[in-house]
Amino acid sequence: MHEFKTTYPDNNYTVHVGHGIFNKVMKHYTSHYNEVFYIVDVTVYGHFRDGILKDIEDPILIDSGESAKTFQSFMNLTENLLEQGIKRSSLVVVIGGGAAGDAGGFAAAVTLRGVDFIQVPTTILAHDSAIGGKTAINSSHGKNLIGAFHRPSGVIYDLEFLSTLPESEIMSGFGEVFKHSLLNSKEAARSLMAKTAFGISIDAIEESIIDGIKTKMDYVSSDEFESGSRKFLNLGHTLGHAIEYQYKIPHGQAIILGLYAMMYISNKTAENEIFDLQKYHEYFSGLDYPVGLLGEMDIEQMIDLMRHDKKNIKNEAIGFVLIDESFSPYFTELNISTLENYLSGIKESI
Amino acid sequence: MHEFKTTYPDNNYTVHVGHGIFNKVMKHYTSHYNEVFYIVDVTVYGHFRDGILKDIEDPILIDSGESAKTFQSFMNLTENLLEQGIKRSSLVVVIGGGAAGDAGGFAAAVTLRGVDFIQVPTTILAHDSAIGGKTAINSSHGKNLIGAFHRPSGVIYDLEFLSTLPESEIMSGFGEVFKHSLLNSKEAARSLMAKTAFGISIDAIEESIIDGIKTKMDYVSSDEFESGSRKFLNLGHTLGHAIEYQYKIPHGQAIILGLYAMMYISNKTAENEIFDLQKYHEYFSGLDYPVGLLGEMDIEQMIDLMRHDKKNIKNEAIGFVLIDESFSPYFTELNISTLENYLSGIKESI
Ligand SMILES: NC(=O)c1ccc[n+]([C@@H]2O[C@H](COP(=O)([O-])OP(=O)(O)OC[C@H]3O[C@@H](n4cnc5c(N)ncnc54)[C@H](O)[C@@H]3O)[C@@H](O)[C@H]2O)c1
Ligand SMILES: NC(=O)c1ccc[n+]([C@@H]2O[C@H](COP(=O)([O-])OP(=O)(O)OC[C@H]3O[C@@H](n4cnc5c(N)ncnc54)[C@H](O)[C@@H]3O)[C@@H](O)[C@H]2O)c1
Repeated sequence: MHEFKTTYPDNNYTVHVGHGIFNKVMKHYTSHYNEVFYIVDVTVYGHFRDGILKDIEDPILIDSGESAKTFQSFMNLTENLLEQGIKRSSLVVVIGGGAAGDAGGFAAAVTLRGVDFIQVPTTILAHDSAIGGKTAINSSHGKNLIGAFHRPSGVIYDLEFLSTLPESEIMSGFGEVFKHSLLNSKEAARSLMAKTAFGISIDAIEESIIDGIKTKMDYVSSDEFESGSRKFLNLGHTLGHAIEYQYKIPHGQAIILGLYAMMYISNKTAENEIFDLQKYHEYFSGLDYPVGLLGEMDIEQMIDLMRHDKKNIKNEAIGFVLIDESFSPYFTELNISTLENYLSGIKESI
Repeated sequence: MHEFKTTYPDNNYTVHVGHGIFNKVMKHYTSHYNEVFYIVDVTVYGHFRDGILKDIEDPILIDSGESAKTFQSFMNLTENLLEQGIKRSSLVVVIGGGAAGDAGGFAAAVTLRGVDFIQVPTTILAHDSAIGGKTAINSSHGKNLIGAFHRPSGVIYDLEFLSTLPESEIMSGFGEVFKHSLLNSKEAARSLMAKTAFGISIDAIEESIIDGIKTKMDYVSSDEFESGSRKFLNLGHTLGHAIEYQYKIPHGQAIILGLYAMMYISNKTAENEIFDLQKYHEYFSGLDYPVGLLGEMDIEQMIDLMRHDKKNIKNEAIGFVLIDESFSPYFTELNISTLENYLSGIKESI
């Protein structure tokens, strides 16, 4: 089992990663609480109620995916916890993918103005979302617009959960794994590519997932509230979110496309070939990511969507995270006309 | 104008108190923000739209009183802010009584995971609720069960607002003013009684309101998250909440009854006459507080309600804040049978 600890001045928490660790680590935490409430993604419960989760009695089941993140679901969740007599001294354990983690974490953040909670991520993507204390539900005006920063008391990542993940979720979750490898080092990205050149298997990427956890922890430990370097985690997300929204493709797939665009723009901005675009194009296409979409995108639409991203503060320019010649991320603002040129260039290059 | 500053290690805020100060002080704050959103209690807006509030364009109006604190109203409020394009760098100004402050403050706490906000209290009670960063909405299982700690960036208490307060709100708000005077000193309480022996006028209690603000600020500055001394602010509230719930009388009136019971129990526990109960009985009755209700209360019911109070952690004993012989508050736990005896004693004494 791997254990990583955050490095805040106080109230640090540990991320436990390993195979078959859930019940043992859980016991360590629950023994400190009189009452423990379990919030579990209904699909995950279906897969593991007779397995890893067999000792959990009367969990509060929540919808799979984004349906967990509506106002209605939020209300049901908090009312349910209160109905069952939750106290300030209770513990909430949230088991599921990023959506369950966000919704359950938000409920824990605001019920009785905040109770302790443990994140138990069950998807690849959630190696990312379970760490860093961001919790949220969705608004009709966009995703994750209502939420709170609420540090978990611990994160238990039992890789056994990943065994039931459908192919599409593996492909989507891989987007963030790849992003973390790019933030980590050129070698990390290269090695991940080598291991996945002919397909993504959980075994092959396990080590990169664990490295990704470390990378994410470094960023959120040094900038919890995203006033500086935490923004680098947005690598590939600026255009990625616009593509996800417009073309309704899974988050991680859109991020891969966003990362490709980021590489193109990084090269142009550095006037140097930091990334061998052709190689990445082949690699991503080989893994069935819909890179071709970049050749069809409506540039004005994309720019309009990026302008409205909640992380974008100005209107005349759009903030982007790029990678420089020493392979370090940096934040820059691209004005609209420059960006239009780059996006045309990307379209043509596809 | 009086100005008081919190004494946290960082992120301190100022409470401004005075007559006719709203527009001037407001300008000082809004000049630092590109967008400012106003959330105003509809009754308050009705009274002051042509007066103090005449410069406010397109406020978001919210229901008066507790209707502002429902899930539905919370959803409308956040959706409204997002619809109007709120950004992380925006300012929210909440104008109204404690209910508006709690609801608007909670919306500010969780929209985009927290934006800056200013409290503009317009009732007597809100001299208390606007300070200390507690925000909340109600659940079907009880009041204030969903919320967040979110420090305001400033509190502007323009006493001109109080001019339109109905008599019932003056009487109710006075409960917390009286509580603060008891927490302050024996002399403070005596002097407040002398000034209000024949009725409560805003002019007469203005000084005590200001002292109450200072008292509250001292407590919340030294114990923001209520792990210790902030609990003393609960003086009179343990039985008070049970009475409020059971007999459906206004909060502040119930607090006055709770304070009377606290005096009785403090005397008994100290085996000494810290409070001259007869004098207080006459004083409260003279001001039309329904002290008689204490003579009719159903003891088992009261104990059951106190047991379920969210601040009560154990089940065999009930936490109480009392006042000792040196007139300092202290926290103690009374076991159920002792408490039953005290409540019978109170019933008989009425
Ligand atoms: N808080 C953060 O920092 C952060 C960061 C990134 C993403 N997110 C959020 O995470 C969410 C996406 O997370 P996700 O990709 O995990 O999606 P998800 O939680 O919606 O899970 C995807 C699907 O897989 C199912 N599932 C989960 N675990 C499974 C398992 N072990 N076996 C089989 N099926 C399983 C779920 O029921 C769901 O249908 C989004 O809502 C996003 O906004 C949050
Ligand atoms: N956050 C805290 O620390 C804290 C502390 C104590 C109480 N509270 C909360 O405060 C609320 C009670 O506050 P309240 O007593 O101010 O009640 P309120 O906000 O419901 O106001 C009472 C009534 O007076 C009206 N009103 C407000 N200002 C007015 C004015 N200037 N002129 C005429 N009418 C006016 C309101 O519209 C309402 O109808 C409760 O919800 C309670 O839970 C919060």
